[in-house]
Amino acid sequence: MWCHSCREEYEEEDAGTCKECYEEASETEEELKREIEDLKAKVAFLRLCSPVDPSPSSPTTTDVVLHAASPAGECTSVPPIPAHRAVLMSRSPVFKAMLENEMEESRSGMIKITDVTYNVLRSFVHYLYTAEVLLDEQMACDLLILAEKYQVKHLKAFCEKFMISKINNDNAIVSFAFAHRHNAQHLLEAALSLLLDNMSTLTAREEYKELVEKDPRLVVEIFEAYLRRQVNIALKD
Amino acid sequence: MWCHSCREEYEEEDAGTCKECYEEASETEEELKREIEDLKAKVAFLRLCSPVDPSPSSPTTTDVVLHAASPAGECTSVPPIPAHRAVLMSRSPVFKAMLENEMEESRSGMIKITDVTYNVLRSFVHYLYTAEVLLDEQMACDLLILAEKYQVKHLKAFCEKFMISKINNDNAIVSFAFAHRHNAQHLLEAALSLLLDNMSTLTAREEYKELVEKDPRLVVEIFEAYLRRQVNIALKD
Repeated sequence: MWCHSCREEYEEEDAGTCKECYEEASETEEELKREIEDLKAKVAFLRLCSPVDPSPSSPTTTDVVLHAASPAGECTSVPPIPAHRAVLMSRSPVFKAMLENEMEESRSGMIKITDVTYNVLRSFVHYLYTAEVLLDEQMACDLLILAEKYQVKHLKAFCEKFMISKINNDNAIVSFAFAHRHNAQHLLEAALSLLLDNMSTLTAREEYKELVEKDPRLVVEIFEAYLRRQVNIALKD
Repeated sequence: MWCHSCREEYEEEDAGTCKECYEEASETEEELKREIEDLKAKVAFLRLCSPVDPSPSSPTTTDVVLHAASPAGECTSVPPIPAHRAVLMSRSPVFKAMLENEMEESRSGMIKITDVTYNVLRSFVHYLYTAEVLLDEQMACDLLILAEKYQVKHLKAFCEKFMISKINNDNAIVSFAFAHRHNAQHLLEAALSLLLDNMSTLTAREEYKELVEKDPRLVVEIFEAYLRRQVNIALKD
């Protein structure tokens, strides 16, 4: 028999689908690809010009500025980041409440976010306009914290996914603690699962000892999860 | 043999794929579906609150208004439609040029679009914020014209797709002329193809006679395309 897909010959016991299902699957794939093209075009359409890189010729239409912290020990202040109230309010319920009500930020048109660096805040604002950001591990942490604070769920999920893709034995404890602190459930589960798979080396790790010092309740959580797993394995045997 | 997809028995001559290709195809389908979910979430994130239905409690952040024509014969003027310069400029190079330069519209913050009704302009603005609109045949025509005028390619393609899905023998001539006038290439091709499939009844149609009167060059185009097709068929025989 000849496979309609790879065109190779195969034996009866290696048969996959009948011809009808093969054709149906090909059609489905085509349809899904068309849907992806449509959605990509929609995303491109809905993206806004980011005010983070304003073209010098354009007049500014922004009506609010965001201020990050100055680098520690430096006197020079960082430049403000211009933005549109309408965009911030669309993307974040926290900005919405802040700018909708007669709060200081709304009156002055200035939002101070002093616990982040200029670069992080710049990437944050850029993401609110474009849903685009280039992540490394540090940027993913910093943006996840900001996204959690301002309830920008889409960005938080994006950072979490990136961090999950980077989890390994060396950063699992730190990631677990981070996920706990910032309410990142998927990252928490991924980190915990990796920790449980490597319990034999857990207690020898430096980060483990630090965590016992700093937040022993989290260590208890790891052991409780380990115990549950052991009991489950015992029950199955 | 048993099909892995529909679980039915089939004969050797009805074999579709080998097992390996079947499994690969299933994985691809899962991946494509995940990509679609991601893109849908991105679209939802990038959508803006439409200023067309402002919530009465929110303070307005709009900085420009659009005016449609008043209905013919009525003295009462229609309400202005508020919008954001930044959004209009992001979506349409025509609005961008208009608002970037020191044109009347930029100074006054008022854009008059007198050749459309209030409802069409409202849907147009709503689409610029949300990429969403409920079309019927009239709305698709009206919005395609506006999208062409303001170079909002995504909306134009959306209307064109809708109109192509509604093409039939009764509206093919009108659609062909409309597509010609508004530079809608895909609609033009779809309409022409349907006309060529039904040439025997073409000249008896009322719309045909009207087109000969109003724009005989378009009729010539139909006949030239018909001639090309006939020659091609003759060459193949």
